[in-house]
Amino acid sequence: MRTRPLPLSQLKMTDRFWSRWQRVVRDRSLPHQYRQIVETGRLEHFRSVARGETGTFKGFYFNDSDVYKWLEAAAYALILGENAELRAMIEEAVAAVQGAQLEDGYLNTFITLNHPDLRWRNLGAMHEMYCGGHLLEAGVAMFECLGDRRMLDVSIRFADLIAATFGPGKRKGYCGHEELELALVKLTRATGNPKYRELAKWMVEERGSRPSPFEAELEDVEAQKMSPWRSALLDKDGKYNGEYAQDHAPIREHDAVVGHAVRAMYLYIAAADLVTDPAAMKAQERAWKSLSSRRMYITGGIGPSRHNEGFTEDFDLPNLSAYAETCAACGLAWWGQKLVEATGVSDYADVVERALYNGVLSGISLDGESFFYDNPLESRGQHARTPWFGCACCPPNVARLIGSVGNLVASQSDSAFYLHIPASFVATTELNGVKTRITVEGNYPWSGQVKVTVDPERPVEFAFAVRIPGWADDLQIELGDDNETAAEADGSEYETGYAVYRRVWSPGDVIKLDFEMGPKWIEANPRVLDDLGRIAMTRGPLVYCLEDKDVEFVPQRFAADADSEPISEERATLEGHVAVVVPGVVEGQDFPDDLYADLDTTPLETTEATLIPYYLWNNRGPSHMQVWLRRM
Amino acid sequence: MRTRPLPLSQLKMTDRFWSRWQRVVRDRSLPHQYRQIVETGRLEHFRSVARGETGTFKGFYFNDSDVYKWLEAAAYALILGENAELRAMIEEAVAAVQGAQLEDGYLNTFITLNHPDLRWRNLGAMHEMYCGGHLLEAGVAMFECLGDRRMLDVSIRFADLIAATFGPGKRKGYCGHEELELALVKLTRATGNPKYRELAKWMVEERGSRPSPFEAELEDVEAQKMSPWRSALLDKDGKYNGEYAQDHAPIREHDAVVGHAVRAMYLYIAAADLVTDPAAMKAQERAWKSLSSRRMYITGGIGPSRHNEGFTEDFDLPNLSAYAETCAACGLAWWGQKLVEATGVSDYADVVERALYNGVLSGISLDGESFFYDNPLESRGQHARTPWFGCACCPPNVARLIGSVGNLVASQSDSAFYLHIPASFVATTELNGVKTRITVEGNYPWSGQVKVTVDPERPVEFAFAVRIPGWADDLQIELGDDNETAAEADGSEYETGYAVYRRVWSPGDVIKLDFEMGPKWIEANPRVLDDLGRIAMTRGPLVYCLEDKDVEFVPQRFAADADSEPISEERATLEGHVAVVVPGVVEGQDFPDDLYADLDTTPLETTEATLIPYYLWNNRGPSHMQVWLRRM
Repeated sequence: MRTRPLPLSQLKMTDRFWSRWQRVVRDRSLPHQYRQIVETGRLEHFRSVARGETGTFKGFYFNDSDVYKWLEAAAYALILGENAELRAMIEEAVAAVQGAQLEDGYLNTFITLNHPDLRWRNLGAMHEMYCGGHLLEAGVAMFECLGDRRMLDVSIRFADLIAATFGPGKRKGYCGHEELELALVKLTRATGNPKYRELAKWMVEERGSRPSPFEAELEDVEAQKMSPWRSALLDKDGKYNGEYAQDHAPIREHDAVVGHAVRAMYLYIAAADLVTDPAAMKAQERAWKSLSSRRMYITGGIGPSRHNEGFTEDFDLPNLSAYAETCAACGLAWWGQKLVEATGVSDYADVVERALYNGVLSGISLDGESFFYDNPLESRGQHARTPWFGCACCPPNVARLIGSVGNLVASQSDSAFYLHIPASFVATTELNGVKTRITVEGNYPWSGQVKVTVDPERPVEFAFAVRIPGWADDLQIELGDDNETAAEADGSEYETGYAVYRRVWSPGDVIKLDFEMGPKWIEANPRVLDDLGRIAMTRGPLVYCLEDKDVEFVPQRFAADADSEPISEERATLEGHVAVVVPGVVEGQDFPDDLYADLDTTPLETTEATLIPYYLWNNRGPSHMQVWLRRM
Repeated sequence: MRTRPLPLSQLKMTDRFWSRWQRVVRDRSLPHQYRQIVETGRLEHFRSVARGETGTFKGFYFNDSDVYKWLEAAAYALILGENAELRAMIEEAVAAVQGAQLEDGYLNTFITLNHPDLRWRNLGAMHEMYCGGHLLEAGVAMFECLGDRRMLDVSIRFADLIAATFGPGKRKGYCGHEELELALVKLTRATGNPKYRELAKWMVEERGSRPSPFEAELEDVEAQKMSPWRSALLDKDGKYNGEYAQDHAPIREHDAVVGHAVRAMYLYIAAADLVTDPAAMKAQERAWKSLSSRRMYITGGIGPSRHNEGFTEDFDLPNLSAYAETCAACGLAWWGQKLVEATGVSDYADVVERALYNGVLSGISLDGESFFYDNPLESRGQHARTPWFGCACCPPNVARLIGSVGNLVASQSDSAFYLHIPASFVATTELNGVKTRITVEGNYPWSGQVKVTVDPERPVEFAFAVRIPGWADDLQIELGDDNETAAEADGSEYETGYAVYRRVWSPGDVIKLDFEMGPKWIEANPRVLDDLGRIAMTRGPLVYCLEDKDVEFVPQRFAADADSEPISEERATLEGHVAVVVPGVVEGQDFPDDLYADLDTTPLETTEATLIPYYLWNNRGPSHMQVWLRRM
């Protein structure tokens, strides 16, 4: 059954966990990021265009996109409630963007300022369409969340220019960095005009065909000069190959995720909406399978290599050098959610949740003002979040994901409501024509006890589906109403990993969930050579790590005793979390002065270690950290 | 007691191990390398100079040095016996080099062909003096080993030009890549002229003083243009720092090895001969200590980082990405030998031996025709020896080291003979004025049983010192003559790790050595985070590894049982070696299809693994390999 997300204005996060994050993003991350955008000249580029300047663009050629992504995130943030500072920043940014759009709808400050004659000349390297995609996403978000049409109008003019230039019977062209495709889908949703979606479908389907437009561009000497594009990344054994930009094969022939991880995710997000015939879905399932069962860190981080910011080989998952870009984890969550909505299969939601609570949130500090670009699973003190990056894709990406997390926790069709992640929220929607309020209450992800109240205005029949998390070894679901003791929910149907209750729901009906959260140890497939002899602690959807702030020794020197019982302990530090205390051994502190010595020169001491959720690490300064602990 | 190496013409290797290597180098490596030198245009550069061409240099600016190093290695090789093919190649190369020397003695084909106006303008980056150093080493080797003065005469003219240009009261200057200094020492040895040695001493002592001549050169825009020199490597936090080229501090203030590993080794080789006052020796001891007890792989590989081809931080010794350049291991052996000769302390010889039998020999294939540049301690199938490199420093370096290995096994003073490495050889020398033949016989490094015959022409008193290897847990030394049962060698003096016998030696006196070879497991200092929970097998001076050619599983999946007895087994494969068979466990072959699973999803199977000496790996095609095995 295909479902859709609820509009963000109809689903508000209420739980301690996400409310805090959304407030931090609104009140701290977004003002901070806006200041960075201004200080680094990103906004000034738009004004330079309006002033008719030339040659004044500085920085990465895709820097416009940061402004758009920030606007999108700001639109989500204001759903939480008005914020005058943020509102003023939005006004300033919108005015700048509006002023930079050319007569014919074109909008890209790098090209317009520095290379006005090279418009659309190097689609493979330059990110005109990528930036445009983020423009569209901002336009749709501001329209849908704030009722503000201004950026949507800019978006429509830009999209119309692209549609007049590219497409069937026109020029064959699409962006080296996917993004526009998924944005065009949103533009059709916001405008009702199907042509944007049709153009996106064509772009997704043409990609990977031969001759590739990128290959021809690589011969265009003048166009190549304007970018630091490493064309070598598109080659393999000296021949054009295109994997870096997923231009290696048509979408229906994909067998595995390849190339730049963020690009791949953005392609598949669009494909899941656009290319849905059985053969195409099978290919997407193959790609997903290669990702989730052979190329994904336990944190939901993806793309192990810094070289191509992307994928390498199956089971190549080094921990210390893990790239695992924050944006790629965001993309994974978004793609997985599209597949959940398309199929109703909970396996996808397991991965969405894994990425969300681990590899995405690790990308932002608790105070919301510093960020990881890459998210290694081991640190030896060198890795720390920073306030901004030259290539600043990650900070606004994590901000817009947190602001729109309501899109991931639930979805619905006309006659069914799916609870994917039991975070607390209140949703107001229609099910089979009856206005219904769904209230989820609990202390997720710290507690597995969750109460769901189903409140239709009048009794109505629909299906309520609760995801059974892959990590839950045991769970209890009780069904009842507020006035009587809930009865055990026997007789429900289990479908593709969801417990589905098809019944007439009455006002005040209650579902009580109790998931067994763990803690429990996990091992990796032994083909992951970097994790051999190692184990990782999990509790519910959270992956844990050992950070040196919590112990008297270097985490790498600890070996865990997996046969003893780990203990969950609530902690007030780090904004409140559940830590896990595990027993183990550590090498004695007295080392010989030699580098190499006979066996057992260093005695082992028994000890215990307090593990914290991975996403919380590096909030107390630089540190040694490790997710995969040696097993005693 | 300071000792000196014996001339190579007076000490001939006779053991199975080194004889084979020296024959392979003479008959295969050197002809192969010469063909590469010719095919890659390295020799043609010299002829281009003679023909007065301009702008025709191609490749790395230090490519002249490969020709010189090859000539030096060829000189050593011909001591083994004449080889007509090699002799013809030598003639061709000498003629080419002679023809390229300019009137004033200058000789550098890169500068002369491509940048004749920029001579000596960028000493920090360009390798004019580095290449010149190798010219001198070739000149001295051909003179000393073959009695051929031609290259020595070229060398003298070049060295005289340098001495006329640089030095006290003249220009302050030395090379970014040390090498000339140690070569000037040899030139004084060969010519008896002390001025070369004095110039070298000045260069070593001036290095690291401020202002640095390299710093000024970095401002010379024209000079900087000619090189791909990454000046960033000389900076730290945006300021000139010089560590990359050991220009960070004067030699007497050195506390640790820093920067480019080969450069550091070559500097210290010269310093050990030149700057020997107590303060200077203390500094060199500190540097050595930092290297051998905090920055050296168990293989004697040094310089873990590809970025600077050199040193990073204490205990940073990653295995899979280990750079551990072959040349750096050669340099370590040569520096260690200088310190052995200066101090008579066996600790240095332990390291020389470690580097020689492991990190140096791994750099060359058994057939002598392919080479490692970097020598990782773990492989996942990507690493393989190749016939040549664009930067081809390593192949001729390992060739000249193998050809001159006689310089490492023993040394002497007028009244003492030191046996450092009990490889088989015959040496003929004078001790206290009496011509004496020393014969060492055995099957080292496979067997610890060695017979030494001391054969003076007539009875003479001198000291005979036998190194007690650091790896030997037990040893027996028996002293006697051929005609009687050897008596146990009680009453000898143990000095700085040597058993020293001061007595009157008569013709036919015999010393029988029996070293306990192992096999035994070694652990690393727990500060080496990459080796935690891991152990390495050694046997005598050899470090072992597990290569997938010898087992049915990926080596990384093996965990060794250190509590069971490892077994030595002689093998006829790989030119004959002693393998070590160890018991352990391996994850079962049937993996779940999931990437992450509950604990103990994969059952362990008991098995055993055959380990081979590290230097032998990758002689049967690409492979997975590991030195540091997980401990069960």
